[in-house]
Amino acid sequence: MLEKVDLNRKMGKKEYKEWMDDLQPKLSYLQRACKEQKIPVMIVFEGFGAAGKGTLINKIIEPLDPRGFSVYATAVETKEEKMHPFLWRFWTKIPSQGRIAIFDRSWYRRVLVDRFDGVTTKEQLDYAFGEICSFEKQLTDDGMVIIKLFADVSKKEQKKRFDKLLEDKKTAWRVTKDDLARNKHYEEYLAMNEEMLEKTDSEYAPWHILECTDREYAAAKMTEIVVSVLEQAIADKKAEQEKREQEKTKAQEIKQEKDTLQEAGAASQKEQVLKSSVLAGVDLSKKMEKEEYKKELARLQARLSELHNELYKYRIPVVLAFEGWDAGGKGGAIKRLTQALDPRGYQVNPVAAPNDAEKTHHYLWRFWKQFPKDGHVAIFDRSWYGRVMVERIEGFCQEEEWKRAYHEMNEMEEQLAHHGTIVLKFWMHIDKDEQERRFKERMENPAKQWKITDEDWRNREKWDAYEKAVDEMLIRTSTTYAPWILVEADCKYYARIKVLRTVVEAIEKRLKEEKERK
Amino acid sequence: MLEKVDLNRKMGKKEYKEWMDDLQPKLSYLQRACKEQKIPVMIVFEGFGAAGKGTLINKIIEPLDPRGFSVYATAVETKEEKMHPFLWRFWTKIPSQGRIAIFDRSWYRRVLVDRFDGVTTKEQLDYAFGEICSFEKQLTDDGMVIIKLFADVSKKEQKKRFDKLLEDKKTAWRVTKDDLARNKHYEEYLAMNEEMLEKTDSEYAPWHILECTDREYAAAKMTEIVVSVLEQAIADKKAEQEKREQEKTKAQEIKQEKDTLQEAGAASQKEQVLKSSVLAGVDLSKKMEKEEYKKELARLQARLSELHNELYKYRIPVVLAFEGWDAGGKGGAIKRLTQALDPRGYQVNPVAAPNDAEKTHHYLWRFWKQFPKDGHVAIFDRSWYGRVMVERIEGFCQEEEWKRAYHEMNEMEEQLAHHGTIVLKFWMHIDKDEQERRFKERMENPAKQWKITDEDWRNREKWDAYEKAVDEMLIRTSTTYAPWILVEADCKYYARIKVLRTVVEAIEKRLKEEKERK
Repeated sequence: MLEKVDLNRKMGKKEYKEWMDDLQPKLSYLQRACKEQKIPVMIVFEGFGAAGKGTLINKIIEPLDPRGFSVYATAVETKEEKMHPFLWRFWTKIPSQGRIAIFDRSWYRRVLVDRFDGVTTKEQLDYAFGEICSFEKQLTDDGMVIIKLFADVSKKEQKKRFDKLLEDKKTAWRVTKDDLARNKHYEEYLAMNEEMLEKTDSEYAPWHILECTDREYAAAKMTEIVVSVLEQAIADKKAEQEKREQEKTKAQEIKQEKDTLQEAGAASQKEQVLKSSVLAGVDLSKKMEKEEYKKELARLQARLSELHNELYKYRIPVVLAFEGWDAGGKGGAIKRLTQALDPRGYQVNPVAAPNDAEKTHHYLWRFWKQFPKDGHVAIFDRSWYGRVMVERIEGFCQEEEWKRAYHEMNEMEEQLAHHGTIVLKFWMHIDKDEQERRFKERMENPAKQWKITDEDWRNREKWDAYEKAVDEMLIRTSTTYAPWILVEADCKYYARIKVLRTVVEAIEKRLKEEKERK
Repeated sequence: MLEKVDLNRKMGKKEYKEWMDDLQPKLSYLQRACKEQKIPVMIVFEGFGAAGKGTLINKIIEPLDPRGFSVYATAVETKEEKMHPFLWRFWTKIPSQGRIAIFDRSWYRRVLVDRFDGVTTKEQLDYAFGEICSFEKQLTDDGMVIIKLFADVSKKEQKKRFDKLLEDKKTAWRVTKDDLARNKHYEEYLAMNEEMLEKTDSEYAPWHILECTDREYAAAKMTEIVVSVLEQAIADKKAEQEKREQEKTKAQEIKQEKDTLQEAGAASQKEQVLKSSVLAGVDLSKKMEKEEYKKELARLQARLSELHNELYKYRIPVVLAFEGWDAGGKGGAIKRLTQALDPRGYQVNPVAAPNDAEKTHHYLWRFWKQFPKDGHVAIFDRSWYGRVMVERIEGFCQEEEWKRAYHEMNEMEEQLAHHGTIVLKFWMHIDKDEQERRFKERMENPAKQWKITDEDWRNREKWDAYEKAVDEMLIRTSTTYAPWILVEADCKYYARIKVLRTVVEAIEKRLKEEKERK
């Protein structure tokens, strides 16, 4: 994309002033409009050193309300950041709806500067392009506007600017050895930039090239691009809202039409019998006696305790997600795990409905924030899978949203696994009768009454709908890198031991691989 | 995805009959409805050998009108097919709007059977998953419905079925050595299937698993899936049409709103100056005198003639696409190329508005059909780039369609290049005055009058809009694997020689690499 760019573009001071006088108030207005329309915006600056990214960022924020944006300079990963998947530090920084996040260098470091400097390994590079595209796709699907600006200068112009900076003691420190190396091997670095542009230019997050030889031209063009992208985003958002309103009224009609096509009653009965019933195949008669349970529990907890140290030593992160029917025994199973763990090395994350701050972000944001660093264990009591269960069934998200969620969650877990995380997901399974028994017990036992609410009884009425959603979830998201474990949980003893044993075995297996590798 | 599947699912004969009596007439109706709604459908059968794919296909076509579907059995690539990118044989078989194409094995061979049998190389495998996903995405974005069915049986059941076939002389031939090898190494083959499912299950083309232990159950479930997917597709299509109607009436309003936001006149003037003007940077004063031209022409044509033989010998395919202003000299340049080529080894494809058959397919389909086999040259006089020029400007396609086309065309060219094709794209550039001069000459010269129509004059009025579209096209689609060459064409001699020289040099470079590799 760069070879066709004409780096001789220029603009006179007077012309520049006229344009900025026109564009900047617009930008200021657009920031407010984005806030009102709840549109989150990310502006990414990449490009050659000394192209003037810093000056450009100053120009773009000039007309903005400082309460509405954040600027992030992206340096080499810190020790802490290295202990997470590479996109973690960006996931945790995505702006909430209506805010603007500006990145001076970004996730593209991985395939540009860090690649050139030899920080990125060959294997990391192979994955990086795919991970970047999926990151941008997931965010823009969710309504994020991503504006990617590439600051372009020639080898000669770059050299001239470095020389000028080096002449003056006050600015010489800004030119690093690596900067000079990238100038010296400009062609090689250029090829990396070209590859990056080719692999990451997309309709949902296209690149815009800024010809930076002339600073005025670059600033004016940048402002014009941001203004027109935001104008378009606001128009699109309004159009979409109107459409959604109309759809709501249409939905009824369409439903009726579909019903006549398939005689709803009969068909849904059919569906019931024909569906891939993973859950129906679970053998709930599995049991364990108290005595054996106690023995096994002691043995496995002792082993897990040892393994927790090893995890820390080998810097292996672990993510354990628990889902299951209400009263399925998630809490009890988690407790038996944490009893064996050093409290400084794990975190239990209870997941309820998202709070206000979480609601203004992508639905996966709050989980990204909670993922463990290397050597630590994160346990989720309920998880991101709410998207394809309660949110699907209660209509808290659009159909297209939960449908694409399977893939999004698989991608997220693959990134965790690729980083080296052990990812296990447990479905605590009981039958409907057992649930009723447990609900009643909870109501009768004063010590357990807090555990049961009217909502639990309401959810129970939707058992069939949940069963269908869970079945689809288990099939579409049980992967080699992040499997679902179906836990037969009518007998609590059996269930807890199965969970413990699965975790112990998974860690042992990984440690064995790790030791063989070294 | 497979490990959670319960292969013990069964259905009684009586129940089966009741269901099929209900589902088959529906399917028959839905085929007609898809035809009416112009929905193209692809049904893909993959899965384990002896799972009963053949029987299932027979069941699915039973209620269908045979004039409306085609069944394709996908064997190992023929010699002819090997001489094209691997998806070529499927691109050429995509159904037109309203038709159904059924694939007994499909493009997934590449990552399953052919992978297991060692036909697919490691390098091909690395690319294949990405190419498959982009293929399915491009088609479904265009309205194709893709139903992917995976026929699952256990190792034991498969063995039993093979044994039974082998017992009888009449059926023994159906079990190949490779089938038995895949049964013997079932676990290894299973892992390949799991990887495939994980990497290609998407919201636009999800997989459906068929438990095939019981043939009745499998057939009923398959029919149910196809019926419900098609019902949904028809409902979606109708909803989309209504939306589009409403959008049309809305479009005006939104446009007005945008206009007030950006004071259209001033802004578009601004855009004019700020845009990345690739074309403005072209030096049209470049010239060549007739004498030098004649000498160079003779030399280069002689060289190209030699090279054409080499291309054939080394089995290298070449794709040359010509775009440019009307009267830019495309025809003349192409003629100077073909004069040097053996007519058995090249094809010139003039590209005009799509015909009726082409209109009922994906817009890239007609070009896929024309791509050359190994060792051949295909020259396109105008090309797929019409999508982002005339179709964009005249509103022949939706905005989202031309916006995603840059990426789609890049993906297509990358697939060609990855297969080994030399891909060059020429933009024949003249200025507006030169065009006027040539138009007038054409009108005055009786021998050239056929070359000029009223439409040419009308297009000329849209010069500025075209210039903007061409600039964006050149930047977004000039890639390392398929570069755009800007040809300064005010002087025809200069232009023709530049085209010839570029082609000669590109072939020489490739042959050198090819020879070094061997």
